[in-house]
Order: sequence, then structure tokens, then C-alpha cells
Amino acid sequence: MTSQIFSPDVEQVLDLAGIFVFALSGGLLAIRKNFDVFGIAVLAEATALGGGVLRDVLIGAIPPAAFTNLGYFVTPLVATLVVFFLHPEVARINLTVQTLDALGLGLFCVTGTAKAHDYGLGVVASIALGMLTAVGGGVIRDVLAMETPSLLRWDRSLYAVPSLVGSTLTALLISIDRLNTLTGSTAALLAFVFRMLALRYNWR
Amino acid sequence: MTSQIFSPDVEQVLDLAGIFVFALSGGLLAIRKNFDVFGIAVLAEATALGGGVLRDVLIGAIPPAAFTNLGYFVTPLVATLVVFFLHPEVARINLTVQTLDALGLGLFCVTGTAKAHDYGLGVVASIALGMLTAVGGGVIRDVLAMETPSLLRWDRSLYAVPSLVGSTLTALLISIDRLNTLTGSTAALLAFVFRMLALRYNWR
Amino acid sequence: MTSQIFSPDVEQVLDLAGIFVFALSGGLLAIRKNFDVFGIAVLAEATALGGGVLRDVLIGAIPPAAFTNLGYFVTPLVATLVVFFLHPEVARINLTVQTLDALGLGLFCVTGTAKAHDYGLGVVASIALGMLTAVGGGVIRDVLAMETPSLLRWDRSLYAVPSLVGSTLTALLISIDRLNTLTGSTAALLAFVFRMLALRYNWR
Repeated sequence: MTSQIFSPDVEQVLDLAGIFVFALSGGLLAIRKNFDVFGIAVLAEATALGGGVLRDVLIGAIPPAAFTNLGYFVTPLVATLVVFFLHPEVARINLTVQTLDALGLGLFCVTGTAKAHDYGLGVVASIALGMLTAVGGGVIRDVLAMETPSLLRWDRSLYAVPSLVGSTLTALLISIDRLNTLTGSTAALLAFVFRMLALRYNWR
Repeated sequence: MTSQIFSPDVEQVLDLAGIFVFALSGGLLAIRKNFDVFGIAVLAEATALGGGVLRDVLIGAIPPAAFTNLGYFVTPLVATLVVFFLHPEVARINLTVQTLDALGLGLFCVTGTAKAHDYGLGVVASIALGMLTAVGGGVIRDVLAMETPSLLRWDRSLYAVPSLVGSTLTALLISIDRLNTLTGSTAALLAFVFRMLALRYNWR
Repeated sequence: MTSQIFSPDVEQVLDLAGIFVFALSGGLLAIRKNFDVFGIAVLAEATALGGGVLRDVLIGAIPPAAFTNLGYFVTPLVATLVVFFLHPEVARINLTVQTLDALGLGLFCVTGTAKAHDYGLGVVASIALGMLTAVGGGVIRDVLAMETPSLLRWDRSLYAVPSLVGSTLTALLISIDRLNTLTGSTAALLAFVFRMLALRYNWR
């Protein structure tokens, strides 16, 4: 299993952190759309888990991890409560949320690529599925909220390209049999930094 | 198999009744959106079968029941004809349709939870998949018709909470090994009554 | 395997041609919606591969062919470049694109039906999945671009009915054990001609 980039405990913590911030972004959009608390929860779950669920369905990892790991399911509910009670505060720390979101992006494109490869997918397919893991939840979020997916819009800063960089690096590392905690973290970090620069300088 | 709550014949009749009314709700929305007869059929099929198909894909019940049981597929086509030729009448008996829809909601959250558990999913995941069975088709219906999912909106009476109640009761009954025709029907009935009260008193 | 209607080489060429034109239609919509180059690529991929991926997930052909055949994935990227650099020209040859799209429609409803049957689906389910193969990508394209699916609208010429004809003919041919290159091509051709007539005479 090449996907064990991090020790299981570390990976679990990183995964939950990524899921939490993706869920925050879903919950905040639900607030903007005037959805009720249940709508916030649905959008938080869909945003946080959607990318990974799509990947797992496509590679045959059934049932998806989101349905076998209780923490994955409960974390978006915690985010729902945070958004519901504290959304003015959460919106005010927008930069913090965007930073954490960028961390989730970096992490999920790397772990998604590695998991797809573990399930026997080829290099290009693994890259595509790594990207899907990172961006799929956000697309589901936007479609459910009847917004044009921000992934597709030219007036939003780059989101897909950083995940493409992280996924491609991961696939290259797997090809040369050099994916480990250090190199995997580096790939995730590069995607994260790229995303932060795109945000900062409004790259499109 | 705990999912055999009802005798196969009874379950088949209940399933088809639930599918029929879900299909009516899809067909009526298609009429409001000026879709043609084929659009009505697509929306009827998607509304009636979407929740169960999503559940089956996620738990690995492939091909989904909707594709192996001819009655499941044909019933929405009958509903299409009913809507196409009789839609003023169908709209006029709106309360009847909503009542049948509430019955479908109650039934599908119970049978969906039981089926997910049969396929080895845990308690929380089974509850989530029972809810998805009950509400998933409606979400697909709204997305295809470019409407904000009524599930998410605060200005619609409660729909998800009744299914949460039915699914949770079912999961509890499974946990204490007491799911049978009587208790399963009671759980479905409670979800149904809850939904009818939400409609009557406009709970949000 | 009844699905080997054409020799593998011929089927590969036809598949790629169909994928290419479906991708063009996705890319052109992305241009109209002002999406950036990445949005064009996403919509091209989703339109070209979406129907087949849905079919493969539902019949249990995992991972989907779109993720195991590199040509299937790369072709929409070529179409993306064509649309990006040449979209005024591509739009001007609209009739050519529509003709090729009708060819893709005819081909995919036939091969989709045959593949579903190969995986053990019944006659009606195979017809439904053949249609899904042909029209599913277009529905995903429209939902992602926040357009009411043209499949559902009465003001667009017939699209689903030609695919229904092609799928049904294919299922009949399989039933009487007469599906081969000649009969399969004829079914695809009939669906194609029907679609072209619907376009020409604006059948609705």
C-alpha cells in the first residue's frame, strides 16, 4: 500500500482537519443561501465528503470510507454547529478558513491520488481521481446550492491547477517509487503554497 | 437479512406505491417547468428511483434494485402517463399526493436503513443511507429542474427530520434485535405522522 | 460477449470520435458561459465521459472504462484545445458538430445497451442504460453549467427518442441473437438518421 504516506494516526488527524474546513466552507455557503440548520448540515457533509465518496465509488472502494469511519461523518456535524452558532465569527476569520481549505486541498489531492493508485488505477487516472478528491466536494456543494461551480469560473482564483500540481507530483513520486511521508508532505505543501499564492495575487 | 421487515409481497406493494407517488411529485414539477412528456418521464424516474439507486451504489448492491425489478422501472412511466393526461386533477388532489408522499418517506427511510445494515454498514452510516433513500430522489429531481433543493430551504416544512426519526428508530430496533413487521411499520408510521404534522402546522 | 459489435480497432476509433464530438459540445457551452480553460476541460471531460461512467458504475464495471483507457481521457483534452483556440471556427461549423454529435448519440446508445446486457442486466434495464450512456453526459454538462438540461425541454428538438429507438433496436437484436456488426451499425445509423431528421425538421 503506497497510500500509507503518513502514519495512520497522523493521516487520521490530517483527514479530519481537511474534512472540517471543507465542511465549514459548505456551511458558510448554506448560511449565505438562507438554508436552515438541516440544509447547513447537508451542505457541510456533501462538501466535506463528496470528493472522497465519488473517488471511492469510481475505484470500487465500497462502502466509501465516509461511511465506515464514524469520525468522517461526525466532523461535518461539528462544523455545522460551529457555523450555525458562530457564523459571523467564522466569516470574519475568512483568511484562516481559506488557509485551512488550501491545506485540505493539498492533502486530499495527494492522498486521493495515492489511494486511486493503490486500487490499481493508472498514472493519469490516479491524477484525475486525486484532483476529483480535492475539488469534487466543492462542485457538489455549488450544484446543490444552485451556484455555478466556482471551479469552472474565470473570475475565481486558481483552485484546480494547485490540485493538478499536487496530484501530478504524487503520481510521479509513485512512479519512481519514492512516495513517503517526507515527499508526500512536500507535494501537499507545494499544492498548498501554490493555492495560497493564487489567492494572494489573485491568479486566474 | 433483517431487511425482510415485511413479507416480500407486502414489501413489493408498499415499494411500488412509494415509487408511484414519488414519481408523481417528479412529474408535477416537470409540468410546472414546461418540460415535454419525455422530460416528465425522466424526472418521474429520477425522483422515484434516485434515492434507492444512490444507496445501492454506495453499499455495493450492484446492479441497483431499480434495474433488476421491472416493476420499479415501469411504475414511474405509469405515473408519467397519469401526470401527462390528468395533471390538473393530480394537482387538485395535492393533499392526497402529499399524504402518499409522506407514506413513501416513512417507508423508504425504514427499508433503506435496514438494507444498508444488511450490507454491513454501521449504525450511523445506515441511518444516513436510510435518509438518503428517502430524500435523495427529491434532491435529484430539484437539481435536474434547476430548483434549489426544497430539502435545504428554510421556507419549506420539515422533510428531513421525519426521515431522520424513522431511520434512527429503525437503527435502534436493529441494535436491540427487535426489527420486525410490527416495529418496522411503527417506525415508518411515526415518520409519516411526523411529516403530516409538519405539513399541517407548517413546522420548519 | 455480445458487445463486440465492431472489431476492437473499429470500436476504439468510433468511441474516440464520439467522445471527441461530445467533448466539443461541452467545451462550446463552457465558452458561452465564460468559463476559463480549466472549466472548458472539466466540461469537455464530463460531457464526453459522464454517460459511460454512470453506466459503468451502475452495472459494476469498476473502474469505469474512462479511467482505464488513456485515449478516452486524453481525447476531451484535445477537444479542449481545439475549442479554446478555434471556437469561432468550431461554432461556425455547427452543423458539422451536430452531425458528429448525432453519430455519437447513435453509437453510444447501441454500445451502451450491449455492454449493460453483457453485465447481466435485463432487456428494459439495458435499454435504459443504453440511453443513459448516450444522454447522461449532456445532462451532467448542463447541470454543471447551471442550465436546464436540454434533454428535458420541450423547445429543443428530439434527442432522447432517437436514443430510445437505437437502444430498443439493439435490445431486440440481442433478444433474437442477431446483434452483429451489420445489424448493430444499422441500429446506430437509424438512431443517427432519426436525430438528424429531428434537427432538420425541428421535431419536438
